[in-house]
Amino acid sequence: MKAVESEFNKILNRVLEEVKPTEEEEKQVMEVVEDVISILKQELTQKAGVEEISLEGSFAKGTWIRGKEEADIFAQFNPRVDRETMASLTIKAGKTAVEKLGGFARLRYAEHPYVEGIVKNIQLNIVPCYRLDKGWKTAVDRTPHHTKFVKSNLTKEQRDQVRLLKALLQASNLYGAEIRVGGFSGYVTELMIVKYKTLENLLKHATTWKPPVVMEITSTNVDRVQIIRKFPNSPLIIPDPVDENRNAASAVTLQKLSEFILLAKLFIEEPSSRFFHRSEGHHPVVGSRNILGVFFEIRESKPPDILWGELLHSLNGVTKALEVAGFKVWRYDAWSDEKTVFMLFELEELELPGFYLHKGPEVFRETALGFVHKHVKDERTIAGPWVSGNRIYVLKKRTLTKVDEVLKQALQRSSVSLSHGLKRYVTEGAVIIAGYSNVISFADEHGLRSFVEGFLCGRPSYIDALKHMP
Amino acid sequence: MKAVESEFNKILNRVLEEVKPTEEEEKQVMEVVEDVISILKQELTQKAGVEEISLEGSFAKGTWIRGKEEADIFAQFNPRVDRETMASLTIKAGKTAVEKLGGFARLRYAEHPYVEGIVKNIQLNIVPCYRLDKGWKTAVDRTPHHTKFVKSNLTKEQRDQVRLLKALLQASNLYGAEIRVGGFSGYVTELMIVKYKTLENLLKHATTWKPPVVMEITSTNVDRVQIIRKFPNSPLIIPDPVDENRNAASAVTLQKLSEFILLAKLFIEEPSSRFFHRSEGHHPVVGSRNILGVFFEIRESKPPDILWGELLHSLNGVTKALEVAGFKVWRYDAWSDEKTVFMLFELEELELPGFYLHKGPEVFRETALGFVHKHVKDERTIAGPWVSGNRIYVLKKRTLTKVDEVLKQALQRSSVSLSHGLKRYVTEGAVIIAGYSNVISFADEHGLRSFVEGFLCGRPSYIDALKHMP
Repeated sequence: MKAVESEFNKILNRVLEEVKPTEEEEKQVMEVVEDVISILKQELTQKAGVEEISLEGSFAKGTWIRGKEEADIFAQFNPRVDRETMASLTIKAGKTAVEKLGGFARLRYAEHPYVEGIVKNIQLNIVPCYRLDKGWKTAVDRTPHHTKFVKSNLTKEQRDQVRLLKALLQASNLYGAEIRVGGFSGYVTELMIVKYKTLENLLKHATTWKPPVVMEITSTNVDRVQIIRKFPNSPLIIPDPVDENRNAASAVTLQKLSEFILLAKLFIEEPSSRFFHRSEGHHPVVGSRNILGVFFEIRESKPPDILWGELLHSLNGVTKALEVAGFKVWRYDAWSDEKTVFMLFELEELELPGFYLHKGPEVFRETALGFVHKHVKDERTIAGPWVSGNRIYVLKKRTLTKVDEVLKQALQRSSVSLSHGLKRYVTEGAVIIAGYSNVISFADEHGLRSFVEGFLCGRPSYIDALKHMP
Repeated sequence: MKAVESEFNKILNRVLEEVKPTEEEEKQVMEVVEDVISILKQELTQKAGVEEISLEGSFAKGTWIRGKEEADIFAQFNPRVDRETMASLTIKAGKTAVEKLGGFARLRYAEHPYVEGIVKNIQLNIVPCYRLDKGWKTAVDRTPHHTKFVKSNLTKEQRDQVRLLKALLQASNLYGAEIRVGGFSGYVTELMIVKYKTLENLLKHATTWKPPVVMEITSTNVDRVQIIRKFPNSPLIIPDPVDENRNAASAVTLQKLSEFILLAKLFIEEPSSRFFHRSEGHHPVVGSRNILGVFFEIRESKPPDILWGELLHSLNGVTKALEVAGFKVWRYDAWSDEKTVFMLFELEELELPGFYLHKGPEVFRETALGFVHKHVKDERTIAGPWVSGNRIYVLKKRTLTKVDEVLKQALQRSSVSLSHGLKRYVTEGAVIIAGYSNVISFADEHGLRSFVEGFLCGRPSYIDALKHMP
């Protein structure tokens, strides 16, 4: 420890006061957890195959942050127990425990079922898994090993560094491995602090990163080329110290890794507590913004990761369809409460010119004559065919020029690549709204003004704050 | 010869009647030529160093076509004579000859001076050159060898095939090596018939060409790769049989070679005499065509090849400047009577959107932070900066959006690449006219309607005819 506290650490210590739970808060959670574990032990350990009831996750690791009072309790089964038995035993016991403590329980599914309960404002996830050291049978079988690894590799001070990192990522919308975010999971933040010891050191290193970034946690003698070959298409590769065949950071998108690099550069350049707070109140430049909105309802309930996977795919599909028609799509984003969806696109123009240039084959291709004959007498040919360089061109008339008409026709013709799970909601039910003021009116009617304004500003929180600084 | 005349030959024979001079016409030219040569011999052969007076060019070779009554008469000097003496002797004698025969003479310059005279409606070019077999001192020293080569390698029937080829190229605006055209010279048409014997055979081969095209006239065992390396950037390479280090077809542009290939395909597909006639009377589709006109005067006299070289360069320069500003230029062309110039451009739009997407650096570049700081507080920033993929973007406001304003500003700022010889005429004097109806009014005032209509149709003659066929 340095004798004189650095400016950087002064800022972090102030922030830590906001994000680190107090001993009192910790005690409150711990009491509930102990009660749950005690009931689960009574309910389960007599049963054949239940080997341990354990506390896992960020609470176990001492890396959770205030406002996220949540504990994961795992029932670890002998691998010979079949899945159905394991699930039904845990569900029954979990419900019993939550209800005995006066809470409310419901069944949830990630890869397999678990019980989510709220007891005294604390969220409890009661999850069954197999007790295994390798040859995992379910995705959560690794969790107890993750907990163990992090606990034995992070000092008390480093746990606080994890908390600061999590708070920083949350404020910047980079936290969370869910598809909607595509960011950094809690485990990845812990591994990064295991590797770099402090937030400052991590950020300093991040300013020099260039994707793909390879981060080996336990060894330093890494064959970068081989690891990249093993995890192709991963912008961030952190081999899981608990299972080297898995990239612990596989959820992180190039987008989010790049944002983290830029955030690190801005932070290191001028450390400030502002990076830990979301900028509020967007003041977008409006005027003749060329905005297209697509709104639809989803008449079924889907797990969020499924829905957001479909949404991102469909956003891309609409963008591609607009581009094929001749529009330039500059930006897009989607909002959803998992019942309705609002997609926004900003385009260069909402109406295309009446004519377009159609590029034909090179004169020496077999198709050259066919192209000339096809177009020379066509009613929609405005000029040409002519030769430029070695290629034939023709100027053609457009039938539809307005973006909403173009999109409606493309949807009717099924020429928009939509994910199967959303297709009928979009094709049959989408409201298509072109133009800035129409989109604003629609957003106001549906309480979506804030999403639209954030979109129009088009700045992540860590950049938006810069704009409003003196 | 086939017993039954082919459809192809029937057409050619009909066309030949139009384009081949009669014996009477030939006799008229010959009489004048003989008189001129006779006078030149009297005037020049006593003088030291004049070794021969010869008839050259298409008349000598029997490949000229009707309507082009023109004869080249060369005074061939001993190489020891200096250039000035050679020029002054030829000019004096040439003028004397033309005037003695009641004609009108004037001095012209190609690479060096010569006399152009009109006698009895026949154009005479009286040209001095050195009599050399190699190691040419002036560009025209090769000409007597070209004449000799063609005369000894073309039969009477083949000379008629050359006439047909020339007529075909003329009708299609592909004839002539001058920069304005960038097409096939008379000598190149002759060499192509030496190679392929008949027009039909040449066209059949041309349908299979893919640039670069290598055509060896005398040998058949050609090292294509080596020749292409010797004449890089030449789409058509015909090593001159009189001087293997020269590409006889160096003037032919990719554009014109490609047009010839397409013309050949259309002709072979459906042979017709229409290919020998220019299509007349354009009926362009008008409507909201996005046309930009640039008109200026040239207050000096320049040789046409110089002027057209400068014009083509400047057309390109204006196009590039418009593209840099964000416009899409689909087509352009220029007209000139060598005193005034009218450039036409057809664009996707005459007015750009008020905003544009500005692509910044990738986040891991050193310039990333500078880009963010520069744009985040800039008044013209409409949205962003944001990260997409691994790159930073920002949406900016345009100051000028109208094409005429943009071009005027670019000219003022000297950011348009204009040829030096035209720069001040364009920068100080150009009239810039945006919009279809404004351009039409301007064209009508200046008698340029036909050029504008041809431009709007945008079809070469050999394709335009197709449009009006049943």
